[in-house]
Amino acid sequence: MTTPPSALFTDLYELSMAQVYYEQEQTGEAVFELSVRSLPQGWRYLLAAGLERTLEFLESARFTPADLDYLGSLTQFNPDFLDRLRGFRFRGDVWAVPEGTVAYPHEPLLQVIAPLPEGQIVETAVMNQIAFATLVASKAAHTVDAADGRPLLEFGGRRAHGTIAALEAARAAYIAGFAATSSVEAGRRYAIPVVGTMAHSYVLIHDDETEAFRRFASRYQGTTLLVDTYDTSQGVNRVIAVANDLGPQAVGAIRIDSGDLRAAAVDARHRLDAAGLEHVRIVVSGGLDDQQVAALVAAGAPIDAFACGTAIVTGGDTSALDAAYKLVEYEGKPVAKRSPGKPSLGGRKQVWRTAKVDRIEQFSSPGLRGARSMLQPVLKNGKRVVEPESLTAIRERAAVERASAGARSVEIHPSILVERATRGDRRGPPRPS
Amino acid sequence: MTTPPSALFTDLYELSMAQVYYEQEQTGEAVFELSVRSLPQGWRYLLAAGLERTLEFLESARFTPADLDYLGSLTQFNPDFLDRLRGFRFRGDVWAVPEGTVAYPHEPLLQVIAPLPEGQIVETAVMNQIAFATLVASKAAHTVDAADGRPLLEFGGRRAHGTIAALEAARAAYIAGFAATSSVEAGRRYAIPVVGTMAHSYVLIHDDETEAFRRFASRYQGTTLLVDTYDTSQGVNRVIAVANDLGPQAVGAIRIDSGDLRAAAVDARHRLDAAGLEHVRIVVSGGLDDQQVAALVAAGAPIDAFACGTAIVTGGDTSALDAAYKLVEYEGKPVAKRSPGKPSLGGRKQVWRTAKVDRIEQFSSPGLRGARSMLQPVLKNGKRVVEPESLTAIRERAAVERASAGARSVEIHPSILVERATRGDRRGPPRPS
Repeated sequence: MTTPPSALFTDLYELSMAQVYYEQEQTGEAVFELSVRSLPQGWRYLLAAGLERTLEFLESARFTPADLDYLGSLTQFNPDFLDRLRGFRFRGDVWAVPEGTVAYPHEPLLQVIAPLPEGQIVETAVMNQIAFATLVASKAAHTVDAADGRPLLEFGGRRAHGTIAALEAARAAYIAGFAATSSVEAGRRYAIPVVGTMAHSYVLIHDDETEAFRRFASRYQGTTLLVDTYDTSQGVNRVIAVANDLGPQAVGAIRIDSGDLRAAAVDARHRLDAAGLEHVRIVVSGGLDDQQVAALVAAGAPIDAFACGTAIVTGGDTSALDAAYKLVEYEGKPVAKRSPGKPSLGGRKQVWRTAKVDRIEQFSSPGLRGARSMLQPVLKNGKRVVEPESLTAIRERAAVERASAGARSVEIHPSILVERATRGDRRGPPRPS
Repeated sequence: MTTPPSALFTDLYELSMAQVYYEQEQTGEAVFELSVRSLPQGWRYLLAAGLERTLEFLESARFTPADLDYLGSLTQFNPDFLDRLRGFRFRGDVWAVPEGTVAYPHEPLLQVIAPLPEGQIVETAVMNQIAFATLVASKAAHTVDAADGRPLLEFGGRRAHGTIAALEAARAAYIAGFAATSSVEAGRRYAIPVVGTMAHSYVLIHDDETEAFRRFASRYQGTTLLVDTYDTSQGVNRVIAVANDLGPQAVGAIRIDSGDLRAAAVDARHRLDAAGLEHVRIVVSGGLDDQQVAALVAAGAPIDAFACGTAIVTGGDTSALDAAYKLVEYEGKPVAKRSPGKPSLGGRKQVWRTAKVDRIEQFSSPGLRGARSMLQPVLKNGKRVVEPESLTAIRERAAVERASAGARSVEIHPSILVERATRGDRRGPPRPS
């Protein structure tokens, strides 16, 4: 289940266009940029992710014999084109911001510099991989911010859009600062700490809740007990009974999954403290997103950790980023469309960053003094020029990046504003026909 | 990229519970039901999907040696349990509603009847597969309803949550009645018709738009031309010029991807008709969801087909269903939790359907006269008892099912109401501890 997708993971129009490009010898160097046009409401920044998976795809993308047979069945592709696809390799260059880097709207997360048909054919897979991972990493990062130092646990495997999405989401959330995942496969694959408590079903199959708790705590020293199957206050009382019986270290935490989480946590904290179980932590779960986490933190709820699922692994109210993969240069000349409501910035760009400001400039500009350039070469002639990064390194970068993410302003240099890009169209304004 | 997930695609707590179950010999027969608790706003029904993928998982789920090595590294699992997992097979029964079946909240989409630990271990993967596919199929079905007979095209590959999600979404949308997908890989894999037009980048790399159109229409007779790269009205004029030049059949359709789609379609229709190009169809795209499609149809916009992406493949404003996989029986006795705000219906159920009503009853009830039972056996002792269905058959079922979906009321038989289920807890109401 880990193989990168075939090059056939593309939209039909990419191939229709590519065939024309080859026939017309329109195979000059094109620059495509992947950027996000606007931030979802309440977001302050993006956290880039998905690059590693994208590079795996670009390095390995091939059309298999079965792919070519299928394309041959579609009538619109001729044998010359299929022969070209038989030998297809992505031989372009890619520049990108590393995973775990903070970014803002209009800033390229990734640039593809390649012969036009190649840059076009890989569009669908590149967008798919980068946009989803960046969505999850960004949503998770804002949730980490909201939790204000309290650990976050990713429990969303069952809610993600398929199993691969679940694994990639666990990875992206960990990059963003989540402490652990419930997904065992993600833990194995990415060396992410795995955590888990118990389900309501566990309590339900026992004759009574106290007995259920006793068995679990006897088996797993310092475990987390789920207290809301019947009545949360009663559940906490039973946890206390078990701790009195087995010893206070038998229970490490309780989890509350329903009801008024703030009130339930306050009640549980009082009960636990009164019983001398100050060390027993309170974990809450149940459809939490960044807003709810922020509200619980602001209300001073005595919560030690948050488990989040749906909102992280699917983006919740933001199910997709407003991402675009735009042609910005062809044969060295900037291009940009002018569709109503969807302007774009023409020309290849670089982003220069200081602590306080990002400046988006033409790629060839000298840049901002004392600033670092955010886009770095990652693929040259289709081959990696950087080693895969460890997840730990990416996560550490994200922690540093997030710290100053909200305090930065973004400047778009006048040389690449829409007006200029429009003037840069190869033939100027559209002529009356 | 098609292999079903390993059995390790599960949440850690499933394995923690399973170990206790084996140690305590709590391996009696359990019944788990997967259902959706409530409909997203504006939805009238669910369209079930994802069963085929789920059965593939259940039939093939194994722990590999690498999986077991990893689990052995986690300290909490003992060698006896790992030995059990080494021989793990899902040997349970599964009953389910076929893919393409309409369903409603509280109705089981799938039942797992299995030794308790097995039913628990597969929870995460089963929920993941069914909930996502059903989300997309349902969202797509409401969009098909909204389009009122106009064809719908799924263009969301770049927006889906990973590449597998894109392929599964294309399949689910096709089940729901979408006419085609832009995803070539989905087309190959599932024999879904593939469609595509051209991208803005295609227009941009040409010296002028008319020349871009001329080349494409010369190459692909009856093609669809994208008219909004610079100015939509001008784009339409250029389409007309090309059709006048190459002959009217050179152009089959235009696509409008931005701006006020209704106004642009009206303007385009007038221009095309005035030029004698009544046969040229108008396709619109650009972030459309079921609500926007319904509004355009209600406004009488002269639109012949809608292309939808994000809202279909991600669910748009509904990024996940409120699905649950609940233990409803253990060793023949109904169980149900009573967490605040999350009641559940205890006991194994069957759904009896007529044209006008669905009745949810205890599984052992005789049912409703003249009604059909919706849950059918699909896996017996871990082996299929039904052949995989063709996508065409599933799609045809969905078309029939959708026709009466909105006119049906759902009755929950009193025997399984929450109160009864609560009384059915094995030890009755929680005792004071």
